[in-house]
Amino acid sequence: MDISHDFLDQLQGIVGQSHLSVHKEDRLCYAYDGTAAVYLPDVVVFPATTAEVAGIMQAAADYRIPVIPRGGGSGMTGGALPVKGGMVVVFNRMNRILSVDQENLIARIQPGVITAVFQDHVKKLGLFYPPDPSSAAFSTMGGNLAECAGGPKAVKYGVTRDYVRGLEVVLPTGEIVRTGVETAKGVVGYDLTRLIVGSEGTLAMITEATVRLLPLPESVMTLTAAFESMDRAARAVAQFVRHPHVPRTIEFMDHTAIGLAEDYLHLGLPVDAGALLLMEVDGNKSDIKAIARNLEAESRRMGARVVSIADDEAQAAQLWQARKALSPALFKLAPHKINEDIVVPRNRIPDLVTKIDELRQQTGLIMVAFGHAGDGNIHFNIMLDKSDPTAVKKAHAAVDALFDYTLQLGGTISGEHGVGITKAPYLKKELSSDSIQLMRRIKTAFDPLGLLNPGKIFPEWVPPSQMPA
Amino acid sequence: MDISHDFLDQLQGIVGQSHLSVHKEDRLCYAYDGTAAVYLPDVVVFPATTAEVAGIMQAAADYRIPVIPRGGGSGMTGGALPVKGGMVVVFNRMNRILSVDQENLIARIQPGVITAVFQDHVKKLGLFYPPDPSSAAFSTMGGNLAECAGGPKAVKYGVTRDYVRGLEVVLPTGEIVRTGVETAKGVVGYDLTRLIVGSEGTLAMITEATVRLLPLPESVMTLTAAFESMDRAARAVAQFVRHPHVPRTIEFMDHTAIGLAEDYLHLGLPVDAGALLLMEVDGNKSDIKAIARNLEAESRRMGARVVSIADDEAQAAQLWQARKALSPALFKLAPHKINEDIVVPRNRIPDLVTKIDELRQQTGLIMVAFGHAGDGNIHFNIMLDKSDPTAVKKAHAAVDALFDYTLQLGGTISGEHGVGITKAPYLKKELSSDSIQLMRRIKTAFDPLGLLNPGKIFPEWVPPSQMPA
Repeated sequence: MDISHDFLDQLQGIVGQSHLSVHKEDRLCYAYDGTAAVYLPDVVVFPATTAEVAGIMQAAADYRIPVIPRGGGSGMTGGALPVKGGMVVVFNRMNRILSVDQENLIARIQPGVITAVFQDHVKKLGLFYPPDPSSAAFSTMGGNLAECAGGPKAVKYGVTRDYVRGLEVVLPTGEIVRTGVETAKGVVGYDLTRLIVGSEGTLAMITEATVRLLPLPESVMTLTAAFESMDRAARAVAQFVRHPHVPRTIEFMDHTAIGLAEDYLHLGLPVDAGALLLMEVDGNKSDIKAIARNLEAESRRMGARVVSIADDEAQAAQLWQARKALSPALFKLAPHKINEDIVVPRNRIPDLVTKIDELRQQTGLIMVAFGHAGDGNIHFNIMLDKSDPTAVKKAHAAVDALFDYTLQLGGTISGEHGVGITKAPYLKKELSSDSIQLMRRIKTAFDPLGLLNPGKIFPEWVPPSQMPA
Repeated sequence: MDISHDFLDQLQGIVGQSHLSVHKEDRLCYAYDGTAAVYLPDVVVFPATTAEVAGIMQAAADYRIPVIPRGGGSGMTGGALPVKGGMVVVFNRMNRILSVDQENLIARIQPGVITAVFQDHVKKLGLFYPPDPSSAAFSTMGGNLAECAGGPKAVKYGVTRDYVRGLEVVLPTGEIVRTGVETAKGVVGYDLTRLIVGSEGTLAMITEATVRLLPLPESVMTLTAAFESMDRAARAVAQFVRHPHVPRTIEFMDHTAIGLAEDYLHLGLPVDAGALLLMEVDGNKSDIKAIARNLEAESRRMGARVVSIADDEAQAAQLWQARKALSPALFKLAPHKINEDIVVPRNRIPDLVTKIDELRQQTGLIMVAFGHAGDGNIHFNIMLDKSDPTAVKKAHAAVDALFDYTLQLGGTISGEHGVGITKAPYLKKELSSDSIQLMRRIKTAFDPLGLLNPGKIFPEWVPPSQMPA
C-alpha cells in the first residue's frame, strides 16, 4: 500500500515523531497474532489519548488508509492482523486503570490494560473481575472487549459482555462517542455497548470502558472427578449446573488429553479414565468445605470413580497446571496444531466427543479435546505436520465436518475466539445470508468507507490467496 | 391514514378474516398503553405464526403502512402507541411456551406469553426466570424483551438482556432472521440479539426467543430496615451489595412513601423513619436463616433503628403488598401522576433524594420517591391535577431539572421503561448528537422505509402536537 508523506506528516503531528514507525523491524513486531499468519502493516502508531486516536482515524479516513486496532496480539482468529496492509494502532500507551469505584462496584479502564493486571488490581481491593481468558497474562482488556472473551469461569459468571456497562469509542468516521451507562440499569437508545463488544474491532475503536465488578469470593476450592466415559461426565455436569452453588469452573479433558497431561507432568492423573472433570467452587469461608464435599458426593452419585479435593492451594495450582500444560504439551505429538473453539448445548458434549472419535478413526490424525464443559465450550485440536499436504487436506475436511455437526447439535462455531479471518469462510454455515446482509448494513452504518479492520468476519472480504495455510 | 381495500384483502389472505379488524371499537382497544395518551390505529391484526408476521410486514412495506408491534400494552413511555396511525400487530395468539430444556437450562417462548405465566411455568420445574417487572401479571415476554425490562431482582440477577440467548425476528424488510445462539457462549458475527433487545420494537418484530434459566433458589426471606435518613440507608446499601450473599432485592421508600403505604394498609410501618429498605435474600434452605440474620446484624451496624425479619410467607407477602400498594395509593394524593424512571450510581441516591426535597419545596407539588435502591433505580412521582396548567408547567420544569441532575450524577433518564414518546424530547440530554446520528443510521440499516414503530425514541420523529399532556 502507498502511504504518502503527507499522511505520515499528519500522523506525526498527532502522536509525535517517536510514537509512530514505518521501519520494517518495527512493523514486523505487529504483523502476527495467535494464528500462524503474518501480514505486514505499512505503519504502526502508538496513541496516548482518545483525542489522538480520533485524530489518527480522521487522517486515515482522509487518506483512505485501513486502520487495525491491536491489543496484546494474542487473538486466535486473526482479528489483529493487517490483512489489507495499512496502519496498526497499538494501545500499549493507553494502559491505565483510571478508577475503581468501590461503592458502586465499577471500574474505568483504558483498552491497553493487561487483563491479569486489572484482575490483580481489583483483587487487592477485595473485588473480582470474572472474565478470564487463558491469555489473561498478556492479552489486553481492549482485546477482551473486542472479542467478547470468556474463559473457564463463564459457567457461573458469564462472559465479557456481561461485565461491560459503557464504552468510549472512536468511530470509523472519527467521532468520539460514549455508549451505555455507569449504572446497573439503563435503556436510553440502542445498545451500542454490546453491539461493539464482540465486533472484533470492525465497528469502532474502544478508547475507554466502564466495567462492573463483583465482591471477591472469600474462598475457592478445586476438585477433580474421573469418569469412565465422557457420557457419564456430561450427565454429571448437567446435574452440577442445577445446584444453587453451581461450580464456577467445570473443565474437562478427554482420554487423550489426560494421558498427555500425565505424560508431561507426572501428577498421578487417572490415565485410564474416559474423562476427567476439573472443577472450582467458590463461596464464604464458613461454607466452602461443605460446598466442596457436597459436589464430591454428587460426583460419586453420578458415577465418578475417583474424586479428589485439593488439600491446599499448592495442590490446586498443580491440577490447574495440568490443564494449562495441555496446549504446549500437544506439540509433543506433532509439530503443528489446528485449534478450533466450538460450543454445543452442554448435554450434547458426549455426541461431539463420539464424533471426534469417528473423525480420528477416519482420518488417522491425532485429535485432542478439552475445554469448558460447564458451557459446552470445547477446544478441539488436530495435531499434524503441515508439510504433509494429505494430512492438511484431511484436517480441513475434519474441521469442516465437525463444524457441520456442531451446528446440527444446536451449537456455534465460535464460543470466545471470534471469527476474524480463520473462521470467515465458515460464516455462512452458521448465519443465513439475510443475517449476514443485515450485519453488513450495520457495518456500513458505522464505517461507510470500510476502513476499520477490513477483511474480517465477512467471508467475501478475505481474498482467498491471503488465507493462512 | 388511507388504508386501501387491496391492502386489507392481502392482510385477510394472510391471517384470515377473523384475525384482523378495522372496526372502531376494536381499534380503540389497542389505542392506549401505560401512559395517558391515546392514538387510534387504522387496522389491528392478530397473527398466529412467524410466517404470518413476515407476510404482514411485507404487505405493509409494499403499501407503506406503519407497523406497531404490541404485547400487553403496559408500557410506561408509549412504545406500543400507533402515533402515526397504521397497523397494530397484537401477539396474543403467539403465546406458547415452546420448550423448556431442563438439562441445558433454556426455554423457547413466543412473544405473547404473559411474563408471570412463564415465571410460574418454570418455577414448577424447579427453575427460575429472574426478570420481574411490576407489570409481570399482564405484560408479555415480547414486551419485556423490546423494552429490556428489569424489576426489583436486578440487583442480584440482572435484567432481561442478561437472560436472552437468541431471537427469531421479522425484519422491517420482511425477512425472517435468527440471531444469537442457544448455548452459553457464542461470538459469531455482530450481537444482533442484544441490539434488538431494548430497541422498543423499532428494529424488528420478535417472533420467538430463547432465554436462559437458573436453578430456583430453595428459600427466600424478607427483611425490613428503617433508617433515620436516606443518606444512612444508602450507605447501608453500598455495604450490602459487597456481600457474597448479596440480597436479591433492595427496595426503598422515602418518608412520604412510608406514610402513604401505612395510611393505606395499616401494617405498623415506621412512619417517622427517613427511609425504609425492603429486602429479600435467597439461598439454600440450610443457609437462609443465617444469611437473613447476617443482613439484620449488618443493617443495625449501619445504623438501622428498626429491623424486622418476616416470620413467614404471609408476613412477607404483606410487606410486599405495602410496596406494591404505593402506585395505586398515590392517587389518594392527587388525581394525576407524572411517573419517571431514573437511575443514579447507587451511592448518589441521597443526593437525588435531597434534590427531590428541594424541588418539592420550590414547586409546592407532591413528590414521592421509591424504587430499586440496590440498582440506584428510582421511580419518581409527581402527583397533581392536570387541569391546573400552573401545576403542569411546574411539574414539567421539575422533571426537566431532575433529569439534568440525574445525568450530572452520572445516571440515566431511563432505567427500564424505555424512551418511547414520553422521553424522546429528553434524548439529547443524555446522548450526544453523534451518538443519536449513529443510532439513526442503524435504524435505517434495519428499516430503510421507516415503517416499524415510527415516532419512537428519536425526538424529531415525534410531532410535538401529538405529545401527551
